[in-house]
Amino acid sequence: MKINGRSFRTIWPTADGAAVEIIDQTRLPHDFVTRRLDTVEQVAEAIRVMRVRGAPLIGVTAAYGVALAMARDPSDASLDNALKLLGATRPTAINLRWALDRIATAVRRVTLDKVAGTAFAEAARMADEDAATNAAIGDHGLVLIRAVHGRKPRDPVNILTHCNAGWLACVDWGTALAPIYKAHNEGIAVHVWVDETRPRIQGALTAWELKSHGVPHTVIVDNAGGHLMQHGLVDLCIVGTDRTTRDGDVANKIGTYLKALAASDNDVPFYVGLPGSTVDWSIRSGREIPIEERAPEEVTVIAGRAGERSASVEIFPPGTRAANYAFDVTPARLVTGLITERGVCAASEAGLLSLFPERSNG
Amino acid sequence: MKINGRSFRTIWPTADGAAVEIIDQTRLPHDFVTRRLDTVEQVAEAIRVMRVRGAPLIGVTAAYGVALAMARDPSDASLDNALKLLGATRPTAINLRWALDRIATAVRRVTLDKVAGTAFAEAARMADEDAATNAAIGDHGLVLIRAVHGRKPRDPVNILTHCNAGWLACVDWGTALAPIYKAHNEGIAVHVWVDETRPRIQGALTAWELKSHGVPHTVIVDNAGGHLMQHGLVDLCIVGTDRTTRDGDVANKIGTYLKALAASDNDVPFYVGLPGSTVDWSIRSGREIPIEERAPEEVTVIAGRAGERSASVEIFPPGTRAANYAFDVTPARLVTGLITERGVCAASEAGLLSLFPERSNG
Repeated sequence: MKINGRSFRTIWPTADGAAVEIIDQTRLPHDFVTRRLDTVEQVAEAIRVMRVRGAPLIGVTAAYGVALAMARDPSDASLDNALKLLGATRPTAINLRWALDRIATAVRRVTLDKVAGTAFAEAARMADEDAATNAAIGDHGLVLIRAVHGRKPRDPVNILTHCNAGWLACVDWGTALAPIYKAHNEGIAVHVWVDETRPRIQGALTAWELKSHGVPHTVIVDNAGGHLMQHGLVDLCIVGTDRTTRDGDVANKIGTYLKALAASDNDVPFYVGLPGSTVDWSIRSGREIPIEERAPEEVTVIAGRAGERSASVEIFPPGTRAANYAFDVTPARLVTGLITERGVCAASEAGLLSLFPERSNG
Repeated sequence: MKINGRSFRTIWPTADGAAVEIIDQTRLPHDFVTRRLDTVEQVAEAIRVMRVRGAPLIGVTAAYGVALAMARDPSDASLDNALKLLGATRPTAINLRWALDRIATAVRRVTLDKVAGTAFAEAARMADEDAATNAAIGDHGLVLIRAVHGRKPRDPVNILTHCNAGWLACVDWGTALAPIYKAHNEGIAVHVWVDETRPRIQGALTAWELKSHGVPHTVIVDNAGGHLMQHGLVDLCIVGTDRTTRDGDVANKIGTYLKALAASDNDVPFYVGLPGSTVDWSIRSGREIPIEERAPEEVTVIAGRAGERSASVEIFPPGTRAANYAFDVTPARLVTGLITERGVCAASEAGLLSLFPERSNG
């Protein structure tokens, strides 16, 4: 997507082919800074501290991490180390495991002299496929937005989203935001309610990318969505997911479940945008998804900008105990539909298998 | 309640009788600062910028504001001006209207030479009554906590609260927190999940007063409560209210509704602590309650502490549009019970009238 008129992806190989470059998302929305990653260790750090975040982008970045490790040392031990290091960075994102499995399979198929080249080529292919997948999610979700627009052609379509499941969370387009970009691009008036998304305030990323692309939006605290839905101010919710089970339970950023409850209570459709790679076909219940707990300082200290400088403030006195669960699980019964690259389906095994029949046997 | 072993109320007349003193809650939790208010204008400012907040305390503070105005000029015009000025400070709190009506009635009953003295005496009486009322709310709510404790005597009773409905929101004891203090004081192990409560982070006030009194607690972001309830980590929710309707709809800090939905979805009892003065007997539906919209900067800028200094950070780029609804309405169907100074009742007209039969006729 575009930043000040220039097209960007969130990750790309450097011109010398020896490293990858990312947009450092910990510096957004205040500073647009790119960062060169030369080693698998740097890649792991970037994923862990969330310089890159969002399930699809984590997967592609990890794949490039494996490629960098293979360029340094193409041995099996080096591969195993890289997979272990990268696999431990973020426990909830299923795409991470998926991406590591895929690139490991590709690498193991070739002779040692071809390992590095194969790994880079596979990572690049995964990046391209991710962009194409998300464009397709956008096309399928666009149909839902068009339908709302058809019912109220004079007013903007109001869409609430939580966290950032935009192009910054992917390689391009986004998952939850792809349909919104597609609708905006074809001239449908859309307005996005952007949940702040504490503790890490990924709503600032969503606001930044919507602003960069010119999509009207309003930021709200995470507490506000229920009130908006009670008052008819939300036509549609669309969120992303870090892992969705075979039965359609959706793990996503903490607080998603609360919005889904409000949507259900107010008959607001609640959709989840996701690539098929985000489905964990091996588990049925969201109860089986490990929920990452992060540092309490993400709750007690807030980073932002004071004048021209980066700054942080403590909002609770030192020593205040805080808990920081990063994700929650929205049960399938609260999800109106899943928007995938192959179409929209019910959040259920039957729904998912109608689009991914190759998964019928497990 | 106690701060460093010394007993405090949130508001008290100065020794010279010419002013009132408050705890400036905009300086908490980082600094404990009291502030002298000499004029009705200073009182109105203190309510508007939330140096004092919480429905019961707003009422008592406004009453003292009228007394200060009467001390300066006891005329009817002066009274009308004071009522108008104070009445416009916070539109949602019903106690404000209730308190102004009560003190105006008392003042209008006496001759001009007795107006100031009567007003001060009435304000002091309202403060004492508020403390007694909240102690009674505590006693009735204590029964509910004792019951949970009886079922799991070896583990702490986990109670989730939203915003600050503690003694800082009242003259003493608190509404939602009064039962918790009573339980803690009689030796029941309680642990409080403290919602951060964006945008204004009143959770910091709750954490501060619980810490000052020695009650174990953990701070969480507003997004986390649903996840905790899904995992059996909350035995009971208790919140306050700014206005409750005759039919039991509860207006409280934005986000309360989302927690009530999660409580209902997970069979967690959801209680509201309130003095009878918070009931608006004149309306039935929460839809009729005006919802205050506050400045967008409360969403986009966060105040806290950097080292030893107060500091603020912008978390969204300048110019980001934000909406800031201060309250939402939790429908009566999601409320397990109302804890009042006269006992616990269902959130319904029948429930309320069983405790307040004098309201049967309107």
